[in-house]
Amino acid sequence: MHVPRLDTARAPLPQALAEALAARFGNRYSTAEADRLHHGKDESSHTPAPPDAVIFAESTEEVSSIVALCHSHRVPVIAFGAGTSLEGHLLAIHGGVCIDLSGMNRVLAIRPEDLDATVQAGVTRKQLNAALHDTGLFFPIDPGADASLGGMAATRASGTNAVRYGTMRENVLGMMVVLADGRIIKTGGRARKSAAGYDLTRLLVGSEGTLGIVTELTIRLHPIPEAISSAVCAFPDIAEAVNTVIQVIQLGVPIARIELLDALALKAINRYSKTSLREAPTLFFEFHGSPASVEEQARTVEEIAASHSGMDFDWAIRPEDRSRLWQARHDAYYACLGLKPGAHAVTTDVCVPISRLADCINETVADIAESQLLAPLVGHVGDGNFHLVLLVDPDSPVDVTCAEAFSKRLVERALRMEGTCTGEHGIGIGKQKYLALEHGSAAIDVMRAIKRALDPDNLMNPGKIFMP
Amino acid sequence: MHVPRLDTARAPLPQALAEALAARFGNRYSTAEADRLHHGKDESSHTPAPPDAVIFAESTEEVSSIVALCHSHRVPVIAFGAGTSLEGHLLAIHGGVCIDLSGMNRVLAIRPEDLDATVQAGVTRKQLNAALHDTGLFFPIDPGADASLGGMAATRASGTNAVRYGTMRENVLGMMVVLADGRIIKTGGRARKSAAGYDLTRLLVGSEGTLGIVTELTIRLHPIPEAISSAVCAFPDIAEAVNTVIQVIQLGVPIARIELLDALALKAINRYSKTSLREAPTLFFEFHGSPASVEEQARTVEEIAASHSGMDFDWAIRPEDRSRLWQARHDAYYACLGLKPGAHAVTTDVCVPISRLADCINETVADIAESQLLAPLVGHVGDGNFHLVLLVDPDSPVDVTCAEAFSKRLVERALRMEGTCTGEHGIGIGKQKYLALEHGSAAIDVMRAIKRALDPDNLMNPGKIFMP
Repeated sequence: MHVPRLDTARAPLPQALAEALAARFGNRYSTAEADRLHHGKDESSHTPAPPDAVIFAESTEEVSSIVALCHSHRVPVIAFGAGTSLEGHLLAIHGGVCIDLSGMNRVLAIRPEDLDATVQAGVTRKQLNAALHDTGLFFPIDPGADASLGGMAATRASGTNAVRYGTMRENVLGMMVVLADGRIIKTGGRARKSAAGYDLTRLLVGSEGTLGIVTELTIRLHPIPEAISSAVCAFPDIAEAVNTVIQVIQLGVPIARIELLDALALKAINRYSKTSLREAPTLFFEFHGSPASVEEQARTVEEIAASHSGMDFDWAIRPEDRSRLWQARHDAYYACLGLKPGAHAVTTDVCVPISRLADCINETVADIAESQLLAPLVGHVGDGNFHLVLLVDPDSPVDVTCAEAFSKRLVERALRMEGTCTGEHGIGIGKQKYLALEHGSAAIDVMRAIKRALDPDNLMNPGKIFMP
Repeated sequence: MHVPRLDTARAPLPQALAEALAARFGNRYSTAEADRLHHGKDESSHTPAPPDAVIFAESTEEVSSIVALCHSHRVPVIAFGAGTSLEGHLLAIHGGVCIDLSGMNRVLAIRPEDLDATVQAGVTRKQLNAALHDTGLFFPIDPGADASLGGMAATRASGTNAVRYGTMRENVLGMMVVLADGRIIKTGGRARKSAAGYDLTRLLVGSEGTLGIVTELTIRLHPIPEAISSAVCAFPDIAEAVNTVIQVIQLGVPIARIELLDALALKAINRYSKTSLREAPTLFFEFHGSPASVEEQARTVEEIAASHSGMDFDWAIRPEDRSRLWQARHDAYYACLGLKPGAHAVTTDVCVPISRLADCINETVADIAESQLLAPLVGHVGDGNFHLVLLVDPDSPVDVTCAEAFSKRLVERALRMEGTCTGEHGIGIGKQKYLALEHGSAAIDVMRAIKRALDPDNLMNPGKIFMP
């Protein structure tokens, strides 16, 4: 629905560059239409924009030499991990060369003693967790999709576990990054903390490939808790559910996950996952800790939920029950799509201070009703972050216009409540119009100054976050 | 002992600037020797370097107009909070105007529902915690000194609680910052997480006043745990103590503090605080949580300590006993100074991955013995961070040379073990020589490019972190 500005007057790759890349990379250099199309779209509804060529890179040195070559020809470069971004991050809207990092999928080191690991950027979170099998450790960041860790760093991803374990911001210790001219830098390190110079790691996490390409990451791991239990609880209305969340957070219960789904999302899940959950606003909880601590947390939460008219508080201690519950939660996106066959999903992503969460959701629910949108709600409400899956018929101009206007009102509402236009999906193409509204133009000028300092020719994933 | 490069050819403040500042700020503008001397030294042993003038600012707008005026005359500006930095951060080695922010000490908002607060930069951590009285919340970052929060953000401070609550990096949500030309920006926000644009907050946290001056901060608060208990345990040697730490961390015990002191530090403490602790390597623990969880944590740690020959595991549950214990720990720095009256303390600050901690400390202890230095050890070992307090007679060239050579060997050792030259004190003047060794010159070039982009005339706290 957001039509990117396609540079239609754009020339193909300079012949000298194409020849150099083909000579160097052989059949790992492709201009085949299928490869270009596959690498020109993500999971969003943004109009695809294929790159001019795709290279399947296998090492940091290769990425460096591709970037250096493109730099000498002033050709854009775009990194591609798993293709699961949600704001058009990887669309080649100014053409250029896509560097596919999915082949850089080696887990380079797992250090159980230090609770960290070093991986190539193409390693996915599921692959990492499989590799951690037998170590007693896990990597908690879980954005739903099986994204690559490089992509997750680039977009500052988070997900259901962030309320306890933080986002990529807190869980990347250091990175190897290729800069716009091909130089390779290492940021951060393996010490748990450091006060040595500017925090380049945190600057690059969330920079969406516009400052450099992440090729390796050292990340924090966490001990798999001795005990895990889940629970699900329905509420008569969203306000009571949200007030439960607020009280749980304020009491400092170290809850691992606390997810809200509205009645419509529950309906979608019941249909899709063959569950028979009550079709009412519902919280999904997960508790991590020692057996005693988990029981204590769950009891505390059950009491809080009961005081907010929570119904059917239902424990799931057996792993298979927990898995079924969370699988249903994870499938919510696809379940929601099933509510309106043929529809595109436009996913919103605001995040507000938790004291404003009830207001923000209530106003939003009223707005949905008035807009006659079909838009189930799912959210990482422990962080104040919630998504609406706007089910939009892409061929209906009314649907598209209505969803766009609604998204704008939602972002403006969240910003009025001191929130952010994106809790975890990033700016990409879709949220650029809100960036200055959120941060003010002086702060955006600082971001632009940094971009110009590190990428003066605007070759690193150009057209994302802001126009330089 | 590290003699800063004094710009002796430096002219005094341009008369037009001095007149403009005097006219605007009246008796809050001072060139009195006492004010200049007071603002030209911190708690380190670096040679003082007084600014040309001091202004006691009262608002962000005032800071902005001072910085803009100085910018138009190309005169350096240095922010001053509580003067407790340890690497010469606030020395006016190129002269200029010191902006004292200690009068900007208003707590602007406390929002218990959101677990956050907004404060002016001059608010100190003790003042903030006093203001939080009755809210059930606290601000955990505790670098020992009663530093200002602006200064703590500027140096990315941490301290004893970081193993559980993180450092300033994790606990600053957003800031108001005055840039080199006087522009005011807001970074971050009040949402718990955001993926909206470059993370300017994290770039500025730890930038030591070289990119901008923090005038306001929004910080995370944490619920005061329902139960707190402390414990102390002596070990036959440092290796057993460190192995206890490693196992505690690896098991995921959510310990709030875990501090190591060596036998010499214990001797100093016993003398200074009139305690009668065993003069052996000792761990100080603190546990936060529900009563049941705290008891469980302590029992787990006691078992681990026993399996590493821990002796005299001693609980302190009563608040007065806990306070006495931690007061003794907090006084360790002054206690250590008492071991060699008249000595200066040169404090080291390396931090290594925890698997290397035993090696690093053992090699360091052997090095101390060989160097004949008097150097008690205290450390936030849960993070892999430890300090030696090198007691140096400033009039003894042998002492000074010996301490410098030792510090260099220690940093090189930590870097060999993939650690950092500074876990929490920052680079300032003292650690500049190690920065490229730690990060590599390509990464430092990126830091320099950012510095030049935001402060092209090198007016913000010039001469700190690196030469641009």
